Amino acid sequence: MAEVKLFRTWSSPFALRIIWALKLKGLLQYNPIHKKVPVLVHNGKPIVESFVVLEYIDETWKENPLLPEDPLQRAAARLWAKFGDDKVLPSIWESFTNDGKEQEEAIVKAKENLKYLEEELKGKKFFWGEKLGFADIALGWLAHYESVFEEVAGMKLLTEEEFPLLSAWKLTFADAPIIKDNWPSRDKLVAKFQAIREDQLLKKAPK
Amino acid sequence: MAEVKLFRTWSSPFALRIIWALKLKGLLQYNPIHKKVPVLVHNGKPIVESFVVLEYIDETWKENPLLPEDPLQRAAARLWAKFGDDKVLPSIWESFTNDGKEQEEAIVKAKENLKYLEEELKGKKFFWGEKLGFADIALGWLAHYESVFEEVAGMKLLTEEEFPLLSAWKLTFADAPIIKDNWPSRDKLVAKFQAIREDQLLKKAPK
Repeated sequence: MAEVKLFRTWSSPFALRIIWALKLKGLLQYNPIHKKVPVLVHNGKPIVESFVVLEYIDETWKENPLLPEDPLQRAAARLWAKFGDDKVLPSIWESFTNDGKEQEEAIVKAKENLKYLEEELKGKKFFWGEKLGFADIALGWLAHYESVFEEVAGMKLLTEEEFPLLSAWKLTFADAPIIKDNWPSRDKLVAKFQAIREDQLLKKAPK
Repeated sequence: MAEVKLFRTWSSPFALRIIWALKLKGLLQYNPIHKKVPVLVHNGKPIVESFVVLEYIDETWKENPLLPEDPLQRAAARLWAKFGDDKVLPSIWESFTNDGKEQEEAIVKAKENLKYLEEELKGKKFFWGEKLGFADIALGWLAHYESVFEEVAGMKLLTEEEFPLLSAWKLTFADAPIIKDNWPSRDKLVAKFQAIREDQLLKKAPK
């Protein structure tokens, strides 16, 4: 019997990816001991970095594949995941940790990035297609954390008017089986990110 | 007959990864048309991001696998590749694009990162083991570009005394079949990176 443990903090969106993947594979028992970065421990062997862990999970347990079979579709899924972490997340983070002119500029950039996601969803329910997969899991934080960032920083970013498909995807993803049971408390996230934003603005204030 | 084209610039270490992988698979004909980022085009479909392209190549052509079969070993290879791009390369780039105290601090950080690679090579010829694979290809730029950075920036970083295993790996990798035939001219790289360093120092100079 394989032993699978997950070490993580309650608020990490990266750890959520691993939780979703494990649950999709029917592997329920993880161990939410607090660690700075999520670590999956399988039979005593630690694996880190959420995308590396997702690939490991998908290769080790074959049920409910996270990645399609076709290499080109696999490449697309990996690319959208990477785009989310390399472009979307940093630009939203910039919007969230600034105010005034810097925030406005960051919002423009963030929206440019979100437009690519909006385009990709044309004619599709999930980034994979009819079911959710690797890219959906990678971008899943958008469905819960992005509105927290908006609320805390008093900004509008991912509106239904500008991003109808991405807004629909947010709702569908957030409410999907397995996904919906694992979101951290929104109130706790708001409190946490309020403190983070105050701290960041203080650091950036002119001395 | 599959049509494979590669668009790239002559000096990109990221494009080299793709060239090596294609050649290891016996796919010789790539098309070195100049583009800012390397793009692999297979049967008319473009794929970008060097690690995504490497995974695609490995999944599409099975001969000479780049990744091991065991999921845990695959995770390790992907992790070292990611560590190279996320930690080693930025810290060496910081060392290269600074001087004075900033450079010294960046060198300390870069050496800390290189120490992890040194440790990993204990008892092994390549990062994979007896033959070269994904992580070696990902870190391959070290074998040719790192000494260019040292020469241009007048710094010592990856010395044989401090990094005997990594230094031996550099020589073995740089001289391996297929790898050795595809390095860009060292003189041209020195000229290019001299210009880049001067430009970077100028930008950072106090106004």
